[in-house]
Amino acid sequence: MTDTYATLKTAELGRVRAAIRAGRYRSHTAGLGRGHLQANLAIMPEDQALDFMRFCQRNPKPCPLTGVSDTGDPMMVTLGADIDIRTDVPAYNIYRDGRLDGTVTDISDIWRDDLVVFALGCSFTFEHALQAAGIDMWHIANDTTVPMFRSGLDTVPAGPFAGKMVVSMRFVPQDRIDEVIAICRRYPLAHGAPVHWGDPAAIGIGDIARPDWGDPTPQAPGTVPVFWACGVTPQVAIENARLPLCITHKPGHMLITDIAEDAEVPVMAPGTLITTPPSQQGATP
Amino acid sequence: MTDTYATLKTAELGRVRAAIRAGRYRSHTAGLGRGHLQANLAIMPEDQALDFMRFCQRNPKPCPLTGVSDTGDPMMVTLGADIDIRTDVPAYNIYRDGRLDGTVTDISDIWRDDLVVFALGCSFTFEHALQAAGIDMWHIANDTTVPMFRSGLDTVPAGPFAGKMVVSMRFVPQDRIDEVIAICRRYPLAHGAPVHWGDPAAIGIGDIARPDWGDPTPQAPGTVPVFWACGVTPQVAIENARLPLCITHKPGHMLITDIAEDAEVPVMAPGTLITTPPSQQGATP
Repeated sequence: MTDTYATLKTAELGRVRAAIRAGRYRSHTAGLGRGHLQANLAIMPEDQALDFMRFCQRNPKPCPLTGVSDTGDPMMVTLGADIDIRTDVPAYNIYRDGRLDGTVTDISDIWRDDLVVFALGCSFTFEHALQAAGIDMWHIANDTTVPMFRSGLDTVPAGPFAGKMVVSMRFVPQDRIDEVIAICRRYPLAHGAPVHWGDPAAIGIGDIARPDWGDPTPQAPGTVPVFWACGVTPQVAIENARLPLCITHKPGHMLITDIAEDAEVPVMAPGTLITTPPSQQGATP
Repeated sequence: MTDTYATLKTAELGRVRAAIRAGRYRSHTAGLGRGHLQANLAIMPEDQALDFMRFCQRNPKPCPLTGVSDTGDPMMVTLGADIDIRTDVPAYNIYRDGRLDGTVTDISDIWRDDLVVFALGCSFTFEHALQAAGIDMWHIANDTTVPMFRSGLDTVPAGPFAGKMVVSMRFVPQDRIDEVIAICRRYPLAHGAPVHWGDPAAIGIGDIARPDWGDPTPQAPGTVPVFWACGVTPQVAIENARLPLCITHKPGHMLITDIAEDAEVPVMAPGTLITTPPSQQGATP
């Protein structure tokens, strides 16, 4: 039995994850497990983990850390009750010495005791919030990949990790820019507020019709380009660092976590969140 | 020449930091360098740094990471143009094997090439926001220390770091609880929304009149106790870990950074923030 995007689109998270784990679903995860936080992935030896974690802390907009495994432990215990990172992502890219060396759907055979897994927040979260506010996402409606550009903005380096910030671009009606910024700022674990809007050249982008990754989108009248820090940034920094081994998700093929997309903190643990709306809680002063 | 709290209270940040660096000011920093982010501090050998960083990532409400140094580098380059962590905090606690082994005003003589500095957000940020909204902070008005309690809530462990969550408590008018939660949620790097309000026993606190740290505060009619994750939590986890060496700030004697208190991300770097209000920016679509 094979699962397709159509059969999984309305399925519960458990069924989606089971299909991915069994290798029955190997495609992109946009719109799957709706309401749950999805994450970019970077897996590397412990030798580089502290520097990579510093890189994420110093560049929280492109690299919002949402989970870090124990060294050698493939279970992402803070992100779900039963997430095995070796099997629970539809497709992985394997990099050796900074170069893509293959794409696989299971990494059980190359798992090692010195690996550390990093999960990073992604743009799906704020895109859903913008859609809920009535802001159209052209690339979603038209089933294309959001356009991404290598900007002239520098990241803050840490150890071997450095490089320019990659940004994604969406056209937004000019009279809704302030609203878009306010909405996105609520999601610091999903790239937060845009880094720029308006003139692409101001952040070193030459031709907005020719993205470095993804597909161009047409500009509707009355809209302006808005740029967000993008999760491809750490992949570029990882390539620049030429790690002996690094495993990422295949772009678009994300880890779907058990965490609610709008959770204040991305941690499965008792006592870290007010989960009952305050107005429904009892108070015994 | 000696500086006093009174002489520095209205001084610019540069003058405050110079007084601290020169050892002319050795007292608490509440209300100093107004408008700038202040930070809790934990300094430890690189051997424990990755686990501590994981502990912070897994417990972002008590341990919101705002800055991490390079190994052996005392300059906190992401938090200011010229912050030397060896001298720029009014007082430090030295822990050896998990026990307090002295309080000093300068750590230049014990600095080592393997040390990593962690700066963590603190409650001053949300207290200022609550005061600006007209919520009284009794302990500030009465120059006492906020009451803190060892709660029954577990933190999520990482390596040797573990323990109960310490919480701070402030009484809030019952009809303003929702507003307080909404305001604090805007500051994920300053402990975020409260972790609990109402019955103290529900989170394992016996007697609200007898805090484990700080001073009791009187309860005004119509108010309820509200509890926030507290920056003493990592200090307890550090004590539990019995590190050979760990240096923290002396409670209340914080690092004052160059970062604006309401900055979206706590990083001194070009291109990571929209610093001009959107409505004043030009747009060239």
